Amino acid sequence: MIDLHELLSPERFRQEADAQGLALQRALYEVLKKAIVAGRLLPGASLPGSREMAQAIGISRNGVIHAYEQLAAEGHVQTSRQGTVVAALAVAAHRPSHAGHVQHASDALKSASPLPGLARRTQGFNRRRSVSDDLLPFMPGIPALDAFPRALWHRLMEQARRQSSIDALSYRHTAGEPELRQAIATYLRAARGVQARADQVFITDGTQQALELSARLLADPGECAWIEHPGYGGARAAFAQSGLRLQPITVDAQGLNPPEAWWQERTPRLIYTTPSHQYPLGPTLTLARRLHLIEQARAHGAWIIEDDYDSEIRHDGPPLAAMQGQASDAPVVYIGTFSKTVFPALRLGFMVLPEAVADAAAGVIGAWAPRGHALEQQALAAFIDQGHFTRHLRRMRRLYRDRKEALQAAIDQHWALPGQVLGAQAGMHLVLTLPPECPDHTLAALAMQHGLSPRPLSVYGTGGIAGFNGLVMGYANTPEADMARHIRHLALLAAKCRP
Amino acid sequence: MIDLHELLSPERFRQEADAQGLALQRALYEVLKKAIVAGRLLPGASLPGSREMAQAIGISRNGVIHAYEQLAAEGHVQTSRQGTVVAALAVAAHRPSHAGHVQHASDALKSASPLPGLARRTQGFNRRRSVSDDLLPFMPGIPALDAFPRALWHRLMEQARRQSSIDALSYRHTAGEPELRQAIATYLRAARGVQARADQVFITDGTQQALELSARLLADPGECAWIEHPGYGGARAAFAQSGLRLQPITVDAQGLNPPEAWWQERTPRLIYTTPSHQYPLGPTLTLARRLHLIEQARAHGAWIIEDDYDSEIRHDGPPLAAMQGQASDAPVVYIGTFSKTVFPALRLGFMVLPEAVADAAAGVIGAWAPRGHALEQQALAAFIDQGHFTRHLRRMRRLYRDRKEALQAAIDQHWALPGQVLGAQAGMHLVLTLPPECPDHTLAALAMQHGLSPRPLSVYGTGGIAGFNGLVMGYANTPEADMARHIRHLALLAAKCRP
Repeated sequence: MIDLHELLSPERFRQEADAQGLALQRALYEVLKKAIVAGRLLPGASLPGSREMAQAIGISRNGVIHAYEQLAAEGHVQTSRQGTVVAALAVAAHRPSHAGHVQHASDALKSASPLPGLARRTQGFNRRRSVSDDLLPFMPGIPALDAFPRALWHRLMEQARRQSSIDALSYRHTAGEPELRQAIATYLRAARGVQARADQVFITDGTQQALELSARLLADPGECAWIEHPGYGGARAAFAQSGLRLQPITVDAQGLNPPEAWWQERTPRLIYTTPSHQYPLGPTLTLARRLHLIEQARAHGAWIIEDDYDSEIRHDGPPLAAMQGQASDAPVVYIGTFSKTVFPALRLGFMVLPEAVADAAAGVIGAWAPRGHALEQQALAAFIDQGHFTRHLRRMRRLYRDRKEALQAAIDQHWALPGQVLGAQAGMHLVLTLPPECPDHTLAALAMQHGLSPRPLSVYGTGGIAGFNGLVMGYANTPEADMARHIRHLALLAAKCRP
Repeated sequence: MIDLHELLSPERFRQEADAQGLALQRALYEVLKKAIVAGRLLPGASLPGSREMAQAIGISRNGVIHAYEQLAAEGHVQTSRQGTVVAALAVAAHRPSHAGHVQHASDALKSASPLPGLARRTQGFNRRRSVSDDLLPFMPGIPALDAFPRALWHRLMEQARRQSSIDALSYRHTAGEPELRQAIATYLRAARGVQARADQVFITDGTQQALELSARLLADPGECAWIEHPGYGGARAAFAQSGLRLQPITVDAQGLNPPEAWWQERTPRLIYTTPSHQYPLGPTLTLARRLHLIEQARAHGAWIIEDDYDSEIRHDGPPLAAMQGQASDAPVVYIGTFSKTVFPALRLGFMVLPEAVADAAAGVIGAWAPRGHALEQQALAAFIDQGHFTRHLRRMRRLYRDRKEALQAAIDQHWALPGQVLGAQAGMHLVLTLPPECPDHTLAALAMQHGLSPRPLSVYGTGGIAGFNGLVMGYANTPEADMARHIRHLALLAAKCRP
């Protein structure tokens, strides 16, 4: 029989239960298991009878019996008519393995941990963005959150909920809710010239999932993906994670500009492009280049991933239509998101696949990615169908133009370093180039310490290619009245900035 | 000047606009663009003046000007003081490429499509589940949807919404809402013996995303993953998509049973297991095997992925605690989902990483997977913290036990073929084995035609290993009163079933 007081005094027992927020019965189980696993209760040792244990620590006898049963179910103890004894097995299997002495992670230095580490493929991925950082002035990619019609959205959600039956709780349509697929197809035809029926539209959790799904659907590991340089890090991540080889393609004032010879020498399977407003530099891919890209892609069996991420916002007249509709039967997957036009936490985006592969893709996606969130999708379909979406976009176009103009005026007035503003004709951000003596990483880190979060342009570069130095500055979520103050602040920081 | 009536008569024009559901102004743009792209309007051809065009087709002059502007913005036409002419570029670039004559997908046979196809890695993935199929009797994995407290859930969602500020609309915490991570850590410690602080808990969209993330975080392409055979298809899909080599490991009555030599010969980097209630066969991995598995994994630098998918439901007494807490500092990633315990459309699950890698993983996941859905996560945290979750589970345990017993009684009474019931001690499904003369695929397909959806056990097998023939039968979402009727129906179908 073990000495109960040595193992657990009533006080220590209650303290431990309190500290871990456990019911006493659960605490008894935990304390005993820990002692057994750690070898402090040796095989063959008898536990006190349930009545004695109950009295000793002040819980009900049933509570003790239940804890013993649980330990028995797990094989830590064995129960017979003679009583409850610690099983041989648990401790025997717990001798230190030949891989070395086992330490608890919290006791050991991390580097001495006996655990295997993260995979090599995780190297180079590290983004610790926090919710509050995202709300700082100049963070790219955040829309005007305070301008979103929350009350209206709530009404549409309520309506969707009231109209739903219990199957809204179940797994949902693989490709998304039919109403939303139809609403998107109709909207895209009118607004972007995209030629697609509803069953070519696949709802995703946003651009990132659309990129991952399209990469996996359309390209095999080891195949080559052309990506814009500088370009969207999310595309790099998605394609690299899908096992593709990345080939950076330099962007000039007319957009993506692949050397002609590379169609033969570095033949792509996927080509990622942001033709409406290249991210982050801003040029529009010209019609001549678009048609040539489509023609060459078709000739070489490549897919074009057209990420039309902020085509809805154009400050200088009607946007170019989407590439998807610019040639019949183009090998184009068209990708869009509602993160910027509705709100990011909604996590809804889409991809439009050519008719020839849409049906086969539906079966594959059904095996890869279960879907839910029926009500959000139905509310979004109503938001689009009832015209709220285009009204909201119209308001946002005006608001973002005003904010952009305030930012440009503030730069004109207060910015002292030599530099250029790029890509201001569309979207929700612009690029301010920096002179070499002011490295963008240094300035962005300093700005972050002062509550401003422009992103360094150099992080959009792709391994091994340098030559870009600037700030990517979102203006959509920063009020006009604050622009001059923030730019003066940033200019002061830039004056101190040395490599 | 082109002949307007040849290009578009007012009637044909309106018909086309109606058919495509377009505003007349947008239809004009579409019709002209199509004619230009198709070469029916040749380079240099003059379009009618805006006034003439407006009168001819009966839309406003502004509408025509807008359509022309859009075509000009896209480079399809050029506008000068002399008027609007078709640009040379668009058609020139549209000659059929040397890859062959370009057909529109809807005109061409699919096999003659000039588009590249889907990737080879999509082969073998095809699941066309529909929302209504999921609600049929015997579909595995669907909880009792009508027993979920929807009104309560709605109140918690409303509360979360009222307490939220506008940052609930923005991108959210990479690893999930802090309240939910804490609620899960506390719950898992008490209910499952999982040892983890909140910052080791990562919120996912469900089991599937947890499997993909853990595979990518912890294993590199080409490394070996041991998976249970028969086993969960979602794990096969996630690991295969992550570039891992799959090694099926046979399951016996004590659970996963790898040949001892394979630790050397086919050393795993990942080991996937469902120890509480193996999916789909049902055995519990014994404590002896668990501790041995942990020890060997530690010795060989392997990670164990413990998928505790339905541990909450046990019909025969307290469940074994999770492997994660059964040895200190075990190389275990613990995975769970709320799809079965709350509802599938919620799309919330989690993975618990060891302390030693949690911090590094947070940075990687931040770069891979943006998060949102703040309100659902906050409502779920309240659901757990306020005790509704455990109350709901308690009710479901009773309900599912009753439904299981009704199903077993119906099988005992009405099932005529020789066979065994497996795995009925826990969870939401059981397996009914079939004799070889009744192949499970045939019977399941026949049953589906009659509105019943048990799944064939053979689909849980892993390439090249056969030997399982049976039906996986979910009972959680099927009322007791209907069981006998459905089993009689299934028995009639089975009597007709021939290979």
